[in-house]
Amino acid sequence: MLTRIDHVGIACRDLTAKIEFYTSTFGLTVVSQETNEEQGVKEAMLVVADAPLGSSYVQLLEPLGPDTPVGRFLDRRGEGIHHVGYGVTDITAALAAIGATGVRLLDSRPRHGSMGAAIAFLHPGDVGGVLTELVEAAAR
Amino acid sequence: MLTRIDHVGIACRDLTAKIEFYTSTFGLTVVSQETNEEQGVKEAMLVVADAPLGSSYVQLLEPLGPDTPVGRFLDRRGEGIHHVGYGVTDITAALAAIGATGVRLLDSRPRHGSMGAAIAFLHPGDVGGVLTELVEAAAR
Repeated sequence: MLTRIDHVGIACRDLTAKIEFYTSTFGLTVVSQETNEEQGVKEAMLVVADAPLGSSYVQLLEPLGPDTPVGRFLDRRGEGIHHVGYGVTDITAALAAIGATGVRLLDSRPRHGSMGAAIAFLHPGDVGGVLTELVEAAAR
Repeated sequence: MLTRIDHVGIACRDLTAKIEFYTSTFGLTVVSQETNEEQGVKEAMLVVADAPLGSSYVQLLEPLGPDTPVGRFLDRRGEGIHHVGYGVTDITAALAAIGATGVRLLDSRPRHGSMGAAIAFLHPGDVGGVLTELVEAAAR
């Protein structure tokens, strides 16, 4: 069902500074930057690998304000890993299969994610404290 | 420098239960289980993808006791994502390059990781709150 680790989502206070850090320290390349008003973040995707099954990314997330999910995460925990996203080939089928096991879906239908992907989050309370995202990448 | 997301390390209180959850809910397969006394954990590696550049894994970690790094993490934060590990082709060269940027190395020399890998951790205080691991996989 899961085809890859699509990305690790990292909450930060200063997106520009963190992009500079990841590119200069680890040699990663920014492939996308966008603002997602619905999720209350501005974000950058930095590619780690570009494999046949799909790339993996570091996703850097800066909240648009304190009263957003990532803003509240920063208040509570400080900067750090916010979530993990796994690739799937059919997000609707994956949500149905996972929902049938009893895991609560934060998004019962896919919504808009980075770079045109369809995404959905699972409830961390049902995944051992891990905010887990499913990602069906946009067709290339 | 970084070739892939090698794994996401997830701290849990009951390794057996969490293996059952990840295999039954997400269809992942356990490829390795071991105890690492030095790191104070018993752990399982569950493969997410098996790509030419190397696999990605969910690494489930149960502490051997409360006075271990993962035990203290669970006390402080509860279950959840503990660290991220990136693949590198030459860990000694990567450590030298990253150390030269001023990032503190928790391990100045590689040590023994899962499945025979050579690993080293970077100081999370210098990586935006992210406990970051470098992984040079063992030759197949």
